[in-house]
Amino acid sequence: MKLEQATIKDIARELNVSSSTVSRALKDYPGISDETKRKVKELAEKMNYRPNAIALSLRKSRSFTIGVIIPEVVHFFFSTVISGIEEVAYSRGYKVILTQTNEMIAREKSSVQTMMDNQIDGILVSFSKETTDFDHFKNLLDKGFPIVFFDRIPNLENTVNVVVDDYSGAYEATRHLLQQGYRRIVHLAGPSNLKISQERHRGYKNALEDHGLEYNPDWVVECTHGTDDEGQKITSEILKTFKVQPDAFFANNDMAAVGAMLACKAAGKRVPEDIGIVGFSNWQFCSMIDPTLSSVAQPGFKMGATATEILLDLVEKKKSVDQFQDSVMLDTELLVRKSSVR
Amino acid sequence: MKLEQATIKDIARELNVSSSTVSRALKDYPGISDETKRKVKELAEKMNYRPNAIALSLRKSRSFTIGVIIPEVVHFFFSTVISGIEEVAYSRGYKVILTQTNEMIAREKSSVQTMMDNQIDGILVSFSKETTDFDHFKNLLDKGFPIVFFDRIPNLENTVNVVVDDYSGAYEATRHLLQQGYRRIVHLAGPSNLKISQERHRGYKNALEDHGLEYNPDWVVECTHGTDDEGQKITSEILKTFKVQPDAFFANNDMAAVGAMLACKAAGKRVPEDIGIVGFSNWQFCSMIDPTLSSVAQPGFKMGATATEILLDLVEKKKSVDQFQDSVMLDTELLVRKSSVR
Repeated sequence: MKLEQATIKDIARELNVSSSTVSRALKDYPGISDETKRKVKELAEKMNYRPNAIALSLRKSRSFTIGVIIPEVVHFFFSTVISGIEEVAYSRGYKVILTQTNEMIAREKSSVQTMMDNQIDGILVSFSKETTDFDHFKNLLDKGFPIVFFDRIPNLENTVNVVVDDYSGAYEATRHLLQQGYRRIVHLAGPSNLKISQERHRGYKNALEDHGLEYNPDWVVECTHGTDDEGQKITSEILKTFKVQPDAFFANNDMAAVGAMLACKAAGKRVPEDIGIVGFSNWQFCSMIDPTLSSVAQPGFKMGATATEILLDLVEKKKSVDQFQDSVMLDTELLVRKSSVR
Repeated sequence: MKLEQATIKDIARELNVSSSTVSRALKDYPGISDETKRKVKELAEKMNYRPNAIALSLRKSRSFTIGVIIPEVVHFFFSTVISGIEEVAYSRGYKVILTQTNEMIAREKSSVQTMMDNQIDGILVSFSKETTDFDHFKNLLDKGFPIVFFDRIPNLENTVNVVVDDYSGAYEATRHLLQQGYRRIVHLAGPSNLKISQERHRGYKNALEDHGLEYNPDWVVECTHGTDDEGQKITSEILKTFKVQPDAFFANNDMAAVGAMLACKAAGKRVPEDIGIVGFSNWQFCSMIDPTLSSVAQPGFKMGATATEILLDLVEKKKSVDQFQDSVMLDTELLVRKSSVR
């Protein structure tokens, strides 16, 4: 891994002084001559040295700590990912610190800064729904700092990405509903700026078309927040206003699917007899609700474990980023329960 | 807050030199005379200065980062606590890092070390089910390092604790079942080494006795893991083997309550007509399952927010530990849903 940006070592080598002299000169510590300070600062400027590279370059040994930046710890999928991350990290002698962005880009940037301040060896990231600009990661990637993205991946070159096969999961879920005889399937979609939402949408669309059914964009309704409340409100509205009544819902996530189920029951519809429902993520509660909810299981534990194995291989220089040109893709599995079988 | 162990500042004051001289002398940096190094090291030894106090004492400014050590992020209650913590921390200009112990004391000790390595300003802790020895916290408390314990609190002097009123929550839940006409109430209890389990058990017992019913220890069955699987197995066994059949279950947590509900349904019992069920914690799924589950809501968000306000007041020296001799206790609220009303 090459460092494209100058480090304190580079400046020290150039000026033939020690790294600690450079570091102290940059921090205006006493005991360094004004002449040296001037030279160091001029060269740092010229070589595009930035203060937040200090943590990376001064480090002599590893901290044996990795950082995880995730949207929400309460999300069942992310909590299983964390279990996979910790399993691998602890077994390889690393500790794990977590920060939660709560889907806010400001907190995500602050999390990156926290990680850098704390001299961690590498980070695992699933970015926030608000994130469209990736400069805060790009700066680090350009310096060769180890980062592995999982689940939500950026549109950047030279990144290592671990994803699940959202397309196939959605395709299978929709095909299953069609095989059960459902024909008028509404898709409760996720935020359209996330690649995972786009892939699930695409899986739904292609399954319909492959079975000779027309794809109607009006039957794709975005559930931005992905809560049960939102899913319930949107579904109630659909049942009230759609002239052609749907006979199934394929939801981008389980919370929206539960909301749809509650709305259907409230409208006097029977699930699965009148309306079939399939969710995505296989939250714990899928097998607790009545009827039990069919859902596409994502290999959260495996995703966390795989991403961590790769990250630690990068940290320990056993592998390099260019060995991961294509995203590592993990299989999903449709779990058929009562909500979609008639 | 008094530091019972010597800090670099104490040594500096005693020798009438700067803190940075002491620090550099201890680290054998060049530019400090051998005589000064000798004096510093001798005094450090004499004053019981320990190297791992460096992080605490060398710090000139705060890192504006607090650490949170919790058993499991997937637990709905803890995730709401985290939201409360982050709300207050970010609004007061602090960042938050989390570590999860997965209920293992080895990881808890490692988490404390990670926090110390990372120069955080204070920690919020809910300890693991395995933790019976608190030395890893006591060392820090003795140095005056700010720690606030929440939910699971240690049997230590001079700690600041924030808890919910588990006793009253359990008492109310049991009284509610009695008022609904249920008489043979089984308590699915939590691990008996946790104070929260003991308090909930005590609330159950006192409510029975206050209503003139006999307390029978055989009707208290421990669910150590608190999973729905475990709750289901234990309840099936109870329904099969108890000569006097129970007509209600008060569970120490919602997962066990859901397990009990599934076991009752599987045994052909109707909930709430034949058997009433109340859980504890008010997980999200309580309102999603059928029948909806009555549960004791704990103020997770408020607990996180309160604990953080206190921690930051300690960090900023606006308050001191001796102002918190008694635990700060927050009210619970019984949410009555369909599972316990007949």
